[in-house]
Amino acid sequence: MKKTDLLVIGGSAGGILSANTARKAYGDIKITVIRDTQKVMVPCGIPYIFGRLKDTSKNAIPDGILTNNDIEIMIDKVIKIDKENKVVETKNNELIEYKRLIIATGSLPFIPTFIPGHDLENVYTVLKEENYLKKVLEKTKEAENIVVIGGGFIGVEFAEQMRLLDKNVTLVELADACLWQAFDKKFTNEIEENLRENGIKVKTKTKVEKILGNTKVEAVQLDSGERIKADLVILGMGVKPNAKLAKDAGLELNEKGAIVVDQYTRTSNLDIFAVGDCAEKKCFFTGKNVPVLLASTAATEAKIAGCNAFQLRLIRQNKGTISAFTTKFFSTTYAAAGMTEAKAREEGFSIMIGEFSTFDKHPGSLPNTKKINIKLIFSKCSGVILGAQISGGDSVGEMINILSLAIQKGITASELNTFQVATHPLVSASPVAYPINEASMNAISKNCKHLNEDFQI
Amino acid sequence: MKKTDLLVIGGSAGGILSANTARKAYGDIKITVIRDTQKVMVPCGIPYIFGRLKDTSKNAIPDGILTNNDIEIMIDKVIKIDKENKVVETKNNELIEYKRLIIATGSLPFIPTFIPGHDLENVYTVLKEENYLKKVLEKTKEAENIVVIGGGFIGVEFAEQMRLLDKNVTLVELADACLWQAFDKKFTNEIEENLRENGIKVKTKTKVEKILGNTKVEAVQLDSGERIKADLVILGMGVKPNAKLAKDAGLELNEKGAIVVDQYTRTSNLDIFAVGDCAEKKCFFTGKNVPVLLASTAATEAKIAGCNAFQLRLIRQNKGTISAFTTKFFSTTYAAAGMTEAKAREEGFSIMIGEFSTFDKHPGSLPNTKKINIKLIFSKCSGVILGAQISGGDSVGEMINILSLAIQKGITASELNTFQVATHPLVSASPVAYPINEASMNAISKNCKHLNEDFQI
Repeated sequence: MKKTDLLVIGGSAGGILSANTARKAYGDIKITVIRDTQKVMVPCGIPYIFGRLKDTSKNAIPDGILTNNDIEIMIDKVIKIDKENKVVETKNNELIEYKRLIIATGSLPFIPTFIPGHDLENVYTVLKEENYLKKVLEKTKEAENIVVIGGGFIGVEFAEQMRLLDKNVTLVELADACLWQAFDKKFTNEIEENLRENGIKVKTKTKVEKILGNTKVEAVQLDSGERIKADLVILGMGVKPNAKLAKDAGLELNEKGAIVVDQYTRTSNLDIFAVGDCAEKKCFFTGKNVPVLLASTAATEAKIAGCNAFQLRLIRQNKGTISAFTTKFFSTTYAAAGMTEAKAREEGFSIMIGEFSTFDKHPGSLPNTKKINIKLIFSKCSGVILGAQISGGDSVGEMINILSLAIQKGITASELNTFQVATHPLVSASPVAYPINEASMNAISKNCKHLNEDFQI
Repeated sequence: MKKTDLLVIGGSAGGILSANTARKAYGDIKITVIRDTQKVMVPCGIPYIFGRLKDTSKNAIPDGILTNNDIEIMIDKVIKIDKENKVVETKNNELIEYKRLIIATGSLPFIPTFIPGHDLENVYTVLKEENYLKKVLEKTKEAENIVVIGGGFIGVEFAEQMRLLDKNVTLVELADACLWQAFDKKFTNEIEENLRENGIKVKTKTKVEKILGNTKVEAVQLDSGERIKADLVILGMGVKPNAKLAKDAGLELNEKGAIVVDQYTRTSNLDIFAVGDCAEKKCFFTGKNVPVLLASTAATEAKIAGCNAFQLRLIRQNKGTISAFTTKFFSTTYAAAGMTEAKAREEGFSIMIGEFSTFDKHPGSLPNTKKINIKLIFSKCSGVILGAQISGGDSVGEMINILSLAIQKGITASELNTFQVATHPLVSASPVAYPINEASMNAISKNCKHLNEDFQI
């Protein structure tokens, strides 16, 4: 029987980083990653196969990321976990004994079986599998009219990339805004305006009744009765944890079907860890279960699992996800972390809001200057930051991570107003109008009027 | 006699932000900014007047930044502060009574009077004054051979911008590396290579003996005897606090001639504050005086002064400067915050270093991907971050501010390894190789081998 010290099931972000972190943390142990695909697609890179890369192979994660760290890769599929004997069984009839097991089996696209026609030809989900995506890419090239169902990140990113290929693209979202889970209305309006200006037909508050066609898709019928011509349909309606293997092994799942884990990513069996989309996610602010399935969240969990696989050796608990995202549509970048204003109010937080607009270079007369809009959400009494939303140029992609760190460390508006920053004319806002400093001051000055009560000039 | 509640002397970054912050913090008080120039130049924008903007007026800070906040602007020069009567006297014979005074008189270029020929025609310092800069711009257009003396930020940025105009540019630095105060050798080597590849002659460990010419400069003579042809010389040899007014008023200065201030930016007179280049700077790590004169440091101090001018109302002390800078040469951005490795060792810190290299997009096959190099310096026992250096694309300009915040909050390598970040293919590194996370892990895994001592597989 094959033996390994640490066995990782799954070869995407969570699996790779679990294995690599364990190598750094535990030195010379045997580590094996088992996965069921020849190549692994960069998960967040998938939409960009279509418009920018035009080739799936350019979106593959090179195996060297593991083999250079002396981590064995097996291409096979685990079909059973025997947790009592600490052995897994594979499709190719291998038995592998492990000392510790990390499950990183990810998620599967949600398939809306309630929509008639969801299984017609040329209706695709977003499966993270190269051969499947190759076929979608091929069909995309032939298509003229594309309908994307679902206005979350995947849906909007697909719509944008397909529009870059000059396709006639319609984006349909059931809720009253695209990306409503990450952004408040002002930002979702800005995003939808950007999409529309660039030629995407955005239909929010819109329900798909059925997908029409004989064998191949021909149109999408909305509940208003309107029919949208379609040669290709992309279903971007979310994902669900891929946790069947864990369930069959008798590991505890939550009501959403995700593997239950503790703050060290351990499952109900202490020798088995679970990270990424297959594992339960807790909200950083409330501890409630939340369905936030992101590669960056998987990465954090993987580092915790890899480091604590054999000993709880460093304080590296998962305090819950802060839902930090970035995305880019056409030339504008949008980023968010923590709670939206809407979500914070719904949870019952007493909040104060800080807003500011400026430019991402200084002076603003420099070429390629983009406007930055920022909104920060703070707890009203404690002043602690709860959430952030930013739009602007590419630099917003790192600016959000200042706020990601601030949220994780419970930093206050007062501290964020005066924290020292580096600025430079060609790459950042002016030091007299640095967006995080200023939006924090905006929140304080609008909400702390009581501070003035004892002040007489 | 004219009366105002808050009088601010100086109209650049420190003055503007002091006045604007006081407006937000104290509501309806009378605020006056007095300055001795018609227009104010964006200070860090000055080098970019030459290569990119080609016009001083495009680098002016619009007065609206003050007048829109109902702040009065006076164009006049304060010649005396009478701190007993709380009155200032101006060149135009105005007397202005204040309740609180903020001095933001900035700095003046250091003039190397020990170099013969420093006062020849076409030898310029970097004075932040529009008419002077207009003249330098005009002369630059006519010049073919330019020598920049001093390889600090100003010197290197001038050299780069003048090289973009296809001039024959030589940069001379006395120390063994350009920008040695902000970066360790690996990064200064990278920077100098970039400058050389782009056609700048960089001469480090090189002393200027004299500047030659009859009335106009003709050459620069080095102590090696070498003569470099020069139609124009820029002296970028640092700045000194402009504190004469404060000194004459009897305010306490330190041995470097900077105005002594407390953590709330108050001078030795409690009704008078001083911010920016004219005020004393303390090192964040040691509390020692340090000569770090940056607009972003001025901005932080101005926010503290503006907020605390009439009451110490929020805990907003200046804990000392962390020397956060960003700059860009040709297509690469360089940023640093906190102490270099060399400085930390010199101060006696026991340290550990984390390094990592990756790309600023993912997959790296995306167009315009740039390599990122990062180095982090941590306190060895406590794990607290002490310094950071990064090179890469423009996103480095905000990435450094994640580390600026981390330094100010005393965050540890372990926390920076697992802090959650947002990533996106088009604007950031991969979540499995996020530079700050990975460089932190690199430091831990190289230095915490003792953690493995009780580990047996």
